[in-house]
Amino acid sequence: MASEGQAGVFPAKRLETFITSVLAALGLPEQDAAVCAARMTDSDLRGVDTHGIFRLPHYCQRIGAGGINLRPKVRPVRENAVTARVDGDNGMGHVVVTFATELAIQKASEIGLAWVGTFNGNHAGAAAAYTTLALAHDMICMYMTVANGNHMPPWGGAEPILGTNPISVAIPAGEEPPIVLDMSTTVTSHGKVKLAAQKGESIPVGWMVDRKGQPLTDPKRAAEGFLLPIGTYKGYGLNVVIGMLAGVLNGAAFGRNVVDFNKDFVTRNNSGHMILAMRVDNFQTADTFKKEMDFVIREIRESKRMEGVDRIWLPGEIEYYRTRERLEKGIPIAPAVLDELRKVAGGLNLSDRLE
Amino acid sequence: MASEGQAGVFPAKRLETFITSVLAALGLPEQDAAVCAARMTDSDLRGVDTHGIFRLPHYCQRIGAGGINLRPKVRPVRENAVTARVDGDNGMGHVVVTFATELAIQKASEIGLAWVGTFNGNHAGAAAAYTTLALAHDMICMYMTVANGNHMPPWGGAEPILGTNPISVAIPAGEEPPIVLDMSTTVTSHGKVKLAAQKGESIPVGWMVDRKGQPLTDPKRAAEGFLLPIGTYKGYGLNVVIGMLAGVLNGAAFGRNVVDFNKDFVTRNNSGHMILAMRVDNFQTADTFKKEMDFVIREIRESKRMEGVDRIWLPGEIEYYRTRERLEKGIPIAPAVLDELRKVAGGLNLSDRLE
Repeated sequence: MASEGQAGVFPAKRLETFITSVLAALGLPEQDAAVCAARMTDSDLRGVDTHGIFRLPHYCQRIGAGGINLRPKVRPVRENAVTARVDGDNGMGHVVVTFATELAIQKASEIGLAWVGTFNGNHAGAAAAYTTLALAHDMICMYMTVANGNHMPPWGGAEPILGTNPISVAIPAGEEPPIVLDMSTTVTSHGKVKLAAQKGESIPVGWMVDRKGQPLTDPKRAAEGFLLPIGTYKGYGLNVVIGMLAGVLNGAAFGRNVVDFNKDFVTRNNSGHMILAMRVDNFQTADTFKKEMDFVIREIRESKRMEGVDRIWLPGEIEYYRTRERLEKGIPIAPAVLDELRKVAGGLNLSDRLE
Repeated sequence: MASEGQAGVFPAKRLETFITSVLAALGLPEQDAAVCAARMTDSDLRGVDTHGIFRLPHYCQRIGAGGINLRPKVRPVRENAVTARVDGDNGMGHVVVTFATELAIQKASEIGLAWVGTFNGNHAGAAAAYTTLALAHDMICMYMTVANGNHMPPWGGAEPILGTNPISVAIPAGEEPPIVLDMSTTVTSHGKVKLAAQKGESIPVGWMVDRKGQPLTDPKRAAEGFLLPIGTYKGYGLNVVIGMLAGVLNGAAFGRNVVDFNKDFVTRNNSGHMILAMRVDNFQTADTFKKEMDFVIREIRESKRMEGVDRIWLPGEIEYYRTRERLEKGIPIAPAVLDELRKVAGGLNLSDRLE
């Protein structure tokens, strides 16, 4: 038996099975548990450790508190050939958004283009876990969501009523890794500030400001300040638009009615997401398009580098190589996370405790 | 007769008629000239002076050099119920993108959602001039384009092969002004740097870097440096994605094959644009949606302000009030611009010389 405080490295399949077991033990249907596990493991494979298995204890806590509907009836409540508004019935976000993504892909397969929105959902992990699902279908995919907590005011404001509202876009390529953008519209996340505070480090100017708009660099003072949007008023504008397309349009939470899922484990989140899928062969044959993509990807990567820069990366490329590496060598789990996961497994009397 | 070097204020309709006369005198069909004039005047009304009549002398120079097809056959070369790839036939960008926008609106009226892309176009002025066209149809509209000149390297790069690649999103509201985002993905534009150089002012840290990545604050040294993306690598990623969706997908220019329209007036630009239109009543009745939009707009505007801030603005709100003001009081034209316009009118023997 591994002792407390040790790190571990696990094959992706083992983590996926572990997550499935945990969520099934908590009462999710086996199939839904497997969907959550697949999306979360995908995030860990891509090196986005903040959005994968790391979140499992948090999800379990919410489920334990009765904040999640374990047997939701996820279904379109308004639908036509090109769009659907999906009621997530307060199910796990991963289940709701996977449903929406598959529906968008199905509609786009048939007619070329589709936009599916969801309400009554929950935190769904990493955006790229969904947009990348469309790549195998030779589709371009776009995703937006309203973050599950507000840490940023409007531009000029002093009341945090906006979140990190992220956007993801996936675009197929040929021999090259696909383009996968997945970014929040704030300079940094609340999580990264908390991490710096734990480590006793200061944070760079430009991450946060205090209530008077002055740079805040001591992360222990985070509660006195606010996150900043990328590109000042531009990122604020983009953030608001994402919130309206993913939240307001779907009848989901946006603004003051967003529930802070780190503080409140019971109140219905009513998370909103949007996902758009489009076949590239609406415009060109998929082969021609993917060859063109390879060409521009190489042009960018091989363009002149700044002194001291080893390589120019395309959006999603680092995560692509990280996935290959972790599929081969396994996914490292930090000691503190592993301890949490073992506690969860112990509490559920699971046979697999990642030991 | 007004003397040289004087500013002037003109009713919007007068400027629109003037632009139409100039372009018609240069050989554009009357209807196409009127379309260009409408989009350009809209930009001036919104206070986006850099993208309206200010550009007319430049367009005339390009037309004079034979760089524009005056009688293009703008048409879809690939089309289905939800998408179209439109060949702009090297016509004026305003004509091409207006065609694409109207086609997207028409398709979205019929089926709910449409994505139209163009190639073989030219500079089309301000993005918001197109996305706002969908508002009266109770549609959400998104637009992206590849800028007509490269002044930014990839993140980590030292070769400017990317432009300011902008994005615009328009969302209808009820009693409140609609949300109209229109932003480039660089911190600033090449034009603003040139303007600072003309005025002998320095530019802020964060606008540009030199070839070693150090802040460049003397705009006279602009040729030695590069524009920076918003949010560092995030804006770079967004910029590249916009370039791929508006450029590569349409078979339009992106990367090294972008023609710098400020230096080369003859070579075919092959500008690419994308426009997406969607009926809001796919998701909710338009009335319900617009009431919800009013609610969140007011929530943001009326949220607590930072010390010293008079008002929180929503995306496009400043331009909305500017339009009302300029419709009432007229559009001011700077002396240097007015001189240029009069030269153009004189060269064409027009009766109206904005005097």
